[in-house]
Amino acid sequence: MKRLCILGSTGSVGQNCLRVVDGLADRFRVVSLTAGSNLAVLAEQILKFKPALVAVGRQESVEPLQQELRARGYRQPLDIVSGHGGLLEASTLPEVDFVVSASHGVTGLEATFEAIRAGKPVGLANKEVLVVAGELVMRVARERGVEILPIDSEHSAVHQCLRAGKGHEVRRLILTGSGGPFLRTPRKEFDFITPSEALKHPIWKMGGRITVDSATLMNKGLEIIEAHWLFGLRPDQIQVLIHPEAIVHSMIEFRDGATMAQLGVADMRIPIQYALTYPERVAVNGDLGLDLAATERLHFQPADVKRFPCLELGREALEKGGAIPCALNAADEIAVEAFLACRLRFSRIPRVIEEVMSETPAVELNSLDDVIECDQQSRQRAREIVARAED
Amino acid sequence: MKRLCILGSTGSVGQNCLRVVDGLADRFRVVSLTAGSNLAVLAEQILKFKPALVAVGRQESVEPLQQELRARGYRQPLDIVSGHGGLLEASTLPEVDFVVSASHGVTGLEATFEAIRAGKPVGLANKEVLVVAGELVMRVARERGVEILPIDSEHSAVHQCLRAGKGHEVRRLILTGSGGPFLRTPRKEFDFITPSEALKHPIWKMGGRITVDSATLMNKGLEIIEAHWLFGLRPDQIQVLIHPEAIVHSMIEFRDGATMAQLGVADMRIPIQYALTYPERVAVNGDLGLDLAATERLHFQPADVKRFPCLELGREALEKGGAIPCALNAADEIAVEAFLACRLRFSRIPRVIEEVMSETPAVELNSLDDVIECDQQSRQRAREIVARAED
Repeated sequence: MKRLCILGSTGSVGQNCLRVVDGLADRFRVVSLTAGSNLAVLAEQILKFKPALVAVGRQESVEPLQQELRARGYRQPLDIVSGHGGLLEASTLPEVDFVVSASHGVTGLEATFEAIRAGKPVGLANKEVLVVAGELVMRVARERGVEILPIDSEHSAVHQCLRAGKGHEVRRLILTGSGGPFLRTPRKEFDFITPSEALKHPIWKMGGRITVDSATLMNKGLEIIEAHWLFGLRPDQIQVLIHPEAIVHSMIEFRDGATMAQLGVADMRIPIQYALTYPERVAVNGDLGLDLAATERLHFQPADVKRFPCLELGREALEKGGAIPCALNAADEIAVEAFLACRLRFSRIPRVIEEVMSETPAVELNSLDDVIECDQQSRQRAREIVARAED
Repeated sequence: MKRLCILGSTGSVGQNCLRVVDGLADRFRVVSLTAGSNLAVLAEQILKFKPALVAVGRQESVEPLQQELRARGYRQPLDIVSGHGGLLEASTLPEVDFVVSASHGVTGLEATFEAIRAGKPVGLANKEVLVVAGELVMRVARERGVEILPIDSEHSAVHQCLRAGKGHEVRRLILTGSGGPFLRTPRKEFDFITPSEALKHPIWKMGGRITVDSATLMNKGLEIIEAHWLFGLRPDQIQVLIHPEAIVHSMIEFRDGATMAQLGVADMRIPIQYALTYPERVAVNGDLGLDLAATERLHFQPADVKRFPCLELGREALEKGGAIPCALNAADEIAVEAFLACRLRFSRIPRVIEEVMSETPAVELNSLDDVIECDQQSRQRAREIVARAED
């Protein structure tokens, strides 16, 4: 019986994670959940999974949540905590065996970091954790002998492919990406892309920022950084290939010429369950098998870095190192936010990021405080650049 | 330093095997080679690899080979042996650490069997070994703790995919096949297919029988049987998928919904080297990397068992078990031989096999002698059926 903490339980990964847990009730118990402000979904999760503790974003949410639970007749013992401290409490509870890190942005960074410091293995869906603090996080994970299992579909695929060889036998990693909704949109139309167009991802249903990141290919840029930290690959070993069907989730080419790929339907339950049950593979609830004969064709094409400069910004940030990936991530979040609020053109997103990156000194980030400070400064700088662009 | 015996060194796998060895001269030494009648190629191989012993098919070949070597100024000590006994001597030499079983048909069966009995790991390219005597061979391999590493591209792919999980976690194996030269040929034209048409394989350059087997899809039928014995999968877990580009060499679907695939260019050196260096992966000599962006598309379609009944004959033989797979293999060899000699129509090949299978009692084959007897009787019966078809 594995006892879980799920950071970000009401988000899309969090909800899928609980679907997996629901299907494998004999293997998992939910000890703690954390959520921001989606109290209605959180209340349903509490009723179903009976955690010992939940952490909500703000103190003001505690009372309404308690009322809702009382009204529904919920009588189980439950600690409801809130804010920063509550999040840390949820992820470091002694009863927790495994932490699913699925909260957006850097909110979950400290809770994930503290869970690792407390020796708890982590299933990582929040890619910002490694993008902004990869060196720090991996150092602590090594020191504590803690395993970090990727939950996003690409890195889960890489993890699986790597089992067919040894780390030093890898020649290159080929990260696949669907190419997003603008794969065939001419560059001159990029100025006029609307938020609702950018939010229509052809394959995956995900949160707002990650969906826009998929449309700019920044998600692949972030994944390059994440892959570097997870698997110890050099930036030049990590390549991106566009694969619109999103069935091949990524590939590893070994030095003997053999390429391993992991394929599957586009359903997050597969990588989530893989991380939760690793090293075992457990039968899925429902048929998630792949029917390639029905698919008929798989397409592959190079990524167009002219139309999608965010992709190479990710690689560039990784090569520069230090504070730069943190600055990239912060600037991207602000730029995407501004785009979704119709305050920044789609085509301007990479320019904001580029400008923030170029103004950030490539210093080392030696502590979480350094990371948070860099993150805040970069956000501030990005906001200024966005505001200037509005004039 | 691994010391090799190569059974069938002048065939296409044998020659590719020596190319691999040539590129990894610091890892391998060739101790013994066996060949049928291709003395010119064998002499070149001797000059280059300086084995301690070679076995040729017939006693009459020994003297011409010695003369050729003398004429070329070869002065190394070399035993030249011949026939059945010579083959066994080559594969069981005490100095041999690893046997590559690449001779065609059942000729190499006994030599392979004796090598396994002598505790030597085997790289298996000769699929008939497991088709005709799978139960016997695997039993001895288990008893002796001998590893059998597949060398054909499909089973090598399966071996690699299985590293990403455990045997009992496999849901199904998807064997891919290019579909051969008649993938799109209407059934009514099958009567008029000529040997030269059948010998034009779209992807692989191979020997005559295996190329015709690829055209009838009997090769996939034989591979179903081989996969059963190598990997312990039930017949109903093994499926065939047509994939004309022959880049995905096979796939394993695990019970958690994840499918692993091995991809690569169609070059036998990759699976040969994999078997020779396993569990290591060693850099290949030359660039055998895969460029999927250049390939653009991969196609998949179900196998058409109406046009290609040989595929299902393989599965049927496996399900019936005992002597039936041996009868199938013998009948196929005779039928293909007759087809290549223009004595049997292409469309008649499955009928000859089916008839021999239906007349063979599904008795157990408890010894190699039983196997050889069943093989001979089935060949005899197949010849009679072919002769009758000629009338």
